[in-house]
Amino acid sequence: MSARQESQGSGGDAAGAFDSRWAPLPAHARTASDPDVLPAGFRAAGAAAGLKASGKTDVGLLVCDSEQATSAARFTRSGTAAAPVLLTRERCSLGALRAVVVNSGNANAATGAQGYQEAARMQGAAAAAAGVGEDRVAVCSTGVIGVPLDGSVVVKGLAALRGELRRDGAGDFQQAILTTDLFEKRAALDVELPSGVVRLTAQCKGAGMIQPSFATMLCFVQTDAAMSAQTADLLLGVTVKRSFDRISVDGQLSTNDTAILMASGASGVLVEPESEDEERFGEALDALLRHLALLIVRDGEGSVRVGRVVVRGGHGPNVERAARAVANSPLVKCALNGGDPNWGRIVQAVGMALADTAPLPVDVAIEGVQVCVAGQVVPYDESDLARRVAREEVELVVGLPGDGFETEVLFSDLGHEYVRINAEYKT
Amino acid sequence: MSARQESQGSGGDAAGAFDSRWAPLPAHARTASDPDVLPAGFRAAGAAAGLKASGKTDVGLLVCDSEQATSAARFTRSGTAAAPVLLTRERCSLGALRAVVVNSGNANAATGAQGYQEAARMQGAAAAAAGVGEDRVAVCSTGVIGVPLDGSVVVKGLAALRGELRRDGAGDFQQAILTTDLFEKRAALDVELPSGVVRLTAQCKGAGMIQPSFATMLCFVQTDAAMSAQTADLLLGVTVKRSFDRISVDGQLSTNDTAILMASGASGVLVEPESEDEERFGEALDALLRHLALLIVRDGEGSVRVGRVVVRGGHGPNVERAARAVANSPLVKCALNGGDPNWGRIVQAVGMALADTAPLPVDVAIEGVQVCVAGQVVPYDESDLARRVAREEVELVVGLPGDGFETEVLFSDLGHEYVRINAEYKT
Repeated sequence: MSARQESQGSGGDAAGAFDSRWAPLPAHARTASDPDVLPAGFRAAGAAAGLKASGKTDVGLLVCDSEQATSAARFTRSGTAAAPVLLTRERCSLGALRAVVVNSGNANAATGAQGYQEAARMQGAAAAAAGVGEDRVAVCSTGVIGVPLDGSVVVKGLAALRGELRRDGAGDFQQAILTTDLFEKRAALDVELPSGVVRLTAQCKGAGMIQPSFATMLCFVQTDAAMSAQTADLLLGVTVKRSFDRISVDGQLSTNDTAILMASGASGVLVEPESEDEERFGEALDALLRHLALLIVRDGEGSVRVGRVVVRGGHGPNVERAARAVANSPLVKCALNGGDPNWGRIVQAVGMALADTAPLPVDVAIEGVQVCVAGQVVPYDESDLARRVAREEVELVVGLPGDGFETEVLFSDLGHEYVRINAEYKT
Repeated sequence: MSARQESQGSGGDAAGAFDSRWAPLPAHARTASDPDVLPAGFRAAGAAAGLKASGKTDVGLLVCDSEQATSAARFTRSGTAAAPVLLTRERCSLGALRAVVVNSGNANAATGAQGYQEAARMQGAAAAAAGVGEDRVAVCSTGVIGVPLDGSVVVKGLAALRGELRRDGAGDFQQAILTTDLFEKRAALDVELPSGVVRLTAQCKGAGMIQPSFATMLCFVQTDAAMSAQTADLLLGVTVKRSFDRISVDGQLSTNDTAILMASGASGVLVEPESEDEERFGEALDALLRHLALLIVRDGEGSVRVGRVVVRGGHGPNVERAARAVANSPLVKCALNGGDPNWGRIVQAVGMALADTAPLPVDVAIEGVQVCVAGQVVPYDESDLARRVAREEVELVVGLPGDGFETEVLFSDLGHEYVRINAEYKT
């Protein structure tokens, strides 16, 4: 089956969002005309506390004013998870979060017991600012690893932004979570459910150190729909698996990945388990998270082209291994960057992932052009292929023996800008 | 234990070879004054047959004139191993090889049944040129993957070089195996064994697509010592594991990796199993292959600095996983390129490799400067560390919980030159 036979999204947004065939917006959702406005029941703000040398916004607070708020969260699986991740996992009521405090400019990772105490200070100060219990406040950090975080700087920032919390604060909150991101990653949707219209917003960050596992770098999702914590957990779990778990910038699992969904219920629209409301809400959330995941890949610390590798075959773990190997190959990524149809590197990456299986009959198609069948090059139009791989999105389809399993990974290229950013990040 | 407590080699070669503390030359071996001269019993040559668009040398032939020659070989584990690898593994007497035919400019990989036939043509023509049976001729290719190889071009090249085979042909043979290599990778040693002096020479290639598994890209080793095929196999196996298996340029296992050791016996010095001769010969071979492996990493398609990560701990597979994760992290590699002491990325890579173990008490030292103990940053002199990571070789030592296991990986950095080479390789 060729790449061209894949279903292609309509895009459907004149403003340029949701413009990828890989993350189409469903018909019952539309991008909001006022993207800074959070769902009813939420307020947010950001402040420049001084953690970033640039003087930019680096502390954010998101608050849900509803006592009935429900939530769900996913975290990095890193063995060296940052202090705020450990603290939030251990001390929070993850199904009933009412606030998120976040800082950028310092990851508070590899900071040990002292870092844990600083995360606790952030939690305490945010609880006071939000007027909620400490166990209802998630703590997130992003930035450089291995530098002690001075929690008092964050506390000072929280004092400054306390009076600034507003429903149209999504943009300010977004600014507070960015690091090497070259552009904002957020969206606001109005979603038509059978029981009524709800708003769904999200702010996300991530550009490098990206191959999330059960979460992304940082992603915060808000809705004024009402749902149980179990429903929130189910919906977040399923959609994170289809979005942030399927992307890679550099194959690097972060120490700080966190995704949090919060539902205020302020719309009065209840999303019941196994209802059509749940299905529709899930479709919109799926589109939203795939869209944001794709924005992370597009940013990709200097990425100029985005790839999608689809692998099909009869053995699930092999399909997954092959897809990750192609998406994370610096050779495939450099070829994508250069618009170079060097598909032999796809075959090489698959062969590496599936060692001791030679001769492996691999099929490869690029943007619908079949170049390799059963491990052997076939004739194709080189200039046609060269034109296709010069586009902004390039789809690679790999066939392994057998049927029944299929997976995808969305990935960024590897270019000079990635090297420039990452050879000079700390110093 | 800090990096500075590691044993450091003397270097010991005024000509600049064997100048790394990580691959010292043993006292009983010295670099030969006539490096082009192969051990007694060997002849080699190279020719420009027209596979390389540049018109450079691209076909090589190495012949052992002794009927008692013994040999050993190691190959890539890639599931998409190239046709010459499949052919050599299937059709050759690997313990009694007497010739190697090699081409560069085309990997003859992803070329299927037709590629296998072209490899067989190369083998037949080389057997005729060398005057040996086809099963005594190993076939190797390196270059672009997925382009049909025209074996008749190689046959034409073999006809041209047939009369050029000479004992001082090591340099010409070396030229025939290079691709993106920025410099030659070969060495000639005279080794003093208790039973007499033997010569040991090797020619190697490799710059990108490097994370060998049981072999390197291409490495050919010759000696005039006499040894059984079993001894050759044992010695090659042990020394490949300590050299080419411990390096990574970009974490990419090649389709064509092949290492071949051939012994002519022409010196009359017999290396018996479990003798002091065997031990001394093994030490020299070990130094030679580590030296060549390090040259591959130093080349590393534009590498400016070389790293060595040493990981110690109580669980062997975790030690190996952590070392590979650090060596293959594009973030660690970019920091190495920039001379940036961003050690948080080392902690992050270890945490990724050892998922679901948080909080993991990791120790990190860089060039003897301890920066992290039990997962927590400790005070250190930043300007001193910055000076140390600006050197050409940078050693990272990671401590995991427990004792008993230690491994190393030598790795290149990731800089603009890698991107330039690999975004533009094929087109």
